[in-house]
Amino acid sequence: MPTGECAFCRIVAGLTPAEILLADDDVVAFLDHRPLFHGHCLVVPRAHHETLADPPEPLVATLFARVRLLTRAVEAATTAEGSFVAINNRVSQSVPHLHVHIVPRRKGDGLKGFFWPRTRYRDAAHAAETAESIRAALNRIDHR
Amino acid sequence: MPTGECAFCRIVAGLTPAEILLADDDVVAFLDHRPLFHGHCLVVPRAHHETLADPPEPLVATLFARVRLLTRAVEAATTAEGSFVAINNRVSQSVPHLHVHIVPRRKGDGLKGFFWPRTRYRDAAHAAETAESIRAALNRIDHR
Repeated sequence: MPTGECAFCRIVAGLTPAEILLADDDVVAFLDHRPLFHGHCLVVPRAHHETLADPPEPLVATLFARVRLLTRAVEAATTAEGSFVAINNRVSQSVPHLHVHIVPRRKGDGLKGFFWPRTRYRDAAHAAETAESIRAALNRIDHR
Repeated sequence: MPTGECAFCRIVAGLTPAEILLADDDVVAFLDHRPLFHGHCLVVPRAHHETLADPPEPLVATLFARVRLLTRAVEAATTAEGSFVAINNRVSQSVPHLHVHIVPRRKGDGLKGFFWPRTRYRDAAHAAETAESIRAALNRIDHR
């Protein structure tokens, strides 16, 4: 996607203003302008990749090295008790440029983490069959 | 924390049964036994680290290399349209052993991603002040 059409490529290129928290050769972090809580930030690769599956492995490593540091910085700066780190791949993804959310958390802040209803496997065989299908898919993936 | 007291150290050590999806020298992935959707899995470092801030950077890199592959495998195996990748650090964290959730997603599946009410910054100065406090915290962190 050309820079001009992607909201985060525009921020990375300095064409859209944002509160930049960190910027290096590979990664840029900035404040989400509609935060869940103040201090909520987004960490993105400079290069346009849509989902977590798309960048080459070394870029994923660099991205999460920055995320790791930023969780500490965001928690410290907002005197939070913890943090929530999340990525939406395609579904619920507002901007199709890979971005890692870091949200400062406090107990009783109204977010419940995984408050969605959980389900179960019918039985051990159902779980085993699901696991086997994932292992088979892993084997089919080109591990680059 | 000794292996015997941590639910995920017990799975890593083979003391508690689980559907193992991937296991190597550093990382183990297994099915969440109470999934949001079938195929929901957890990826953990073998070593006991509580939050994303705690493992050394190379282990974070390895962990997310595996997460990257597993998002593709889980999506393929469950014919999902996307996925949700998330970490709860301390708040909403059920087991105090770093774990990355990978949840297969479909449009209309009932999860809304970030469906929590969003807030705003009072004004540009408020956002700038928040960003400055995070940048200052980043500068104070020992970047190992």
